[in-house]
Amino acid sequence: MRSEDEKYIKAALELAKKAKGMTSPNPCVGAIVVKDGKVVGKGFHRFAGGPHAEIYALRQAGKKAKGATMYVSLEPCSHYGRTPPCTDTIIRSGIKRLVAAIKDPNPVNNGRGLRILRSHGIKTVVGFLETEACELNEDFIKYITNKLPFVTVKVAQSLDGKIATRTGDSKWITGGKAREFVHKLRSEHDAVMVGAGTILKDDPLLTARVRGTRVKQPLRIILAGRTKIPDKARIFNSKGGNVLIASTKDNSGRVDIRSLLRELAKREVTSVLIEGGGETVASALEAGLVDKVYFFIASKIIGGRKATTSVEGEGVEKAGKAIRLKKMSYRKIGDDLLIEGYVIN
Amino acid sequence: MRSEDEKYIKAALELAKKAKGMTSPNPCVGAIVVKDGKVVGKGFHRFAGGPHAEIYALRQAGKKAKGATMYVSLEPCSHYGRTPPCTDTIIRSGIKRLVAAIKDPNPVNNGRGLRILRSHGIKTVVGFLETEACELNEDFIKYITNKLPFVTVKVAQSLDGKIATRTGDSKWITGGKAREFVHKLRSEHDAVMVGAGTILKDDPLLTARVRGTRVKQPLRIILAGRTKIPDKARIFNSKGGNVLIASTKDNSGRVDIRSLLRELAKREVTSVLIEGGGETVASALEAGLVDKVYFFIASKIIGGRKATTSVEGEGVEKAGKAIRLKKMSYRKIGDDLLIEGYVIN
Repeated sequence: MRSEDEKYIKAALELAKKAKGMTSPNPCVGAIVVKDGKVVGKGFHRFAGGPHAEIYALRQAGKKAKGATMYVSLEPCSHYGRTPPCTDTIIRSGIKRLVAAIKDPNPVNNGRGLRILRSHGIKTVVGFLETEACELNEDFIKYITNKLPFVTVKVAQSLDGKIATRTGDSKWITGGKAREFVHKLRSEHDAVMVGAGTILKDDPLLTARVRGTRVKQPLRIILAGRTKIPDKARIFNSKGGNVLIASTKDNSGRVDIRSLLRELAKREVTSVLIEGGGETVASALEAGLVDKVYFFIASKIIGGRKATTSVEGEGVEKAGKAIRLKKMSYRKIGDDLLIEGYVIN
Repeated sequence: MRSEDEKYIKAALELAKKAKGMTSPNPCVGAIVVKDGKVVGKGFHRFAGGPHAEIYALRQAGKKAKGATMYVSLEPCSHYGRTPPCTDTIIRSGIKRLVAAIKDPNPVNNGRGLRILRSHGIKTVVGFLETEACELNEDFIKYITNKLPFVTVKVAQSLDGKIATRTGDSKWITGGKAREFVHKLRSEHDAVMVGAGTILKDDPLLTARVRGTRVKQPLRIILAGRTKIPDKARIFNSKGGNVLIASTKDNSGRVDIRSLLRELAKREVTSVLIEGGGETVASALEAGLVDKVYFFIASKIIGGRKATTSVEGEGVEKAGKAIRLKKMSYRKIGDDLLIEGYVIN
């Protein structure tokens, strides 16, 4: 029974993943209805405002839902949001058993959906492949529980930590495959963010250019501070997500990133990808606002005591006080190495 | 036949490895004598001046060598060096077939040994597991063909490329397992080298501290330039390899590393491990003198626009002109990541 349950939860997770990056500010969810060992319905949540995964699966199952088991990658909702509560539909369908990977981290639900189902005689089980289920919706979980977007830093550096040469040249440090991967990352985030320096020096588009698939363009945020961004910057003259200029009247010229992130969360921005430069990355890290990092490491050495490094700012005073990372993983992306990890804040 | 040959060559390579770091200025060599599908003798070269691998194997084989096949990880020598030519002994032993992984790269031999054996009616085959065989003796091959030591750079840095914080603190960036690995590396090199700054700031011993094994202590070289190294430096007051201070009268204060390496090669130093700091590493890299790099990457971020990076110097002007690396490989050493690669000079 347990291995059977895990098998279908795994399949529900795979379904959920299909819409990764498309469902914000909702989580990705997949659902499967199984009767007498046969899948009779399946579905996944495609976009906020559209039907939830459970509804798709139950529509497909029709009358076969009666007496069946439903597998969901996340506890069904019990509240009116953009759509009516899924619990009502599940109860009406005649489902007799519900297996969920994890509880809904949303404080308005968080176990309430399961309790309602149980009070209607539906057997509920929760806790399968929790690590994968949480990782899949790590952005949503951070956003809904902390009222802050999930913040990821992306760096493309030489082996010796440089993101540009002493003359400011940065084209290109990493290879084509790594850059392709970054476009996919952008499309999976609600917003991308860079400092004013990056706009002035590199004049990037910050659009998600992904071949052959429907792509969500992220909001493009410039941490401008007191710097004037010229009208002719390519970011203003390109098709892509909206551009938000975060400026300040403060004499330090520094935007308070925490306040900015709080405001972004209010606007339902659940995830932000910070793409540089070194000072912006350092500010976010030093403020303890970064959740995850992607370091692309090229097979080359740039050198230079005046070259820009991936993390500038003041830096720590003692090596023992360095910012620590956990759950590190490594993989090759083309000729580059991608190091992924989570910040211990 | 071929797979049989490869099997014994592999075994000969394994034998050779046993003395890695101990045989300088000679290569590591392993030899196996096989008769009627049975190993009747094996041996490896243990130290310069001691018997060659072939001699050990033939001694063990005794009369069984007659009509047998000998497997060697490197072509047998045909000249008088510290010991008489192995070819003579092989011919006398009655070996009828000799299989070698690679030719001896030493220009005084390089195919001559095999020719001599053939002229005495011994069948010879060469070219098995050449990549492994060359890698095992990469230091010897560089030294004997270029009259320069094989130069390896070792770096221990944070993910963002820092080897010390803005205050100069560097204890410790990488973990205990990585540092253990470095001690092993030191013992496998004829010399270790650091800049004067590293001695003044970190006051290292630069000894090879390896538990429980006989350890060769490397020559300790300080690239002092015009800097006076204080007598109380721990390097002068510790048991370990000899200390060589490379100084210059040149007003630039810079030692010409190429000349230094030429001189070291004359003194039979076949391999040098450069351990920093950032300026020394940059000088060696910029001069095109580095063959291999080991970058230990800690799971932490130090940050700081004034922190020291692993490769300083002037650095390249354009990203496209960066120093490129090949044959990159990655592995975990404790909590750190070790990136290994070869410099394309």
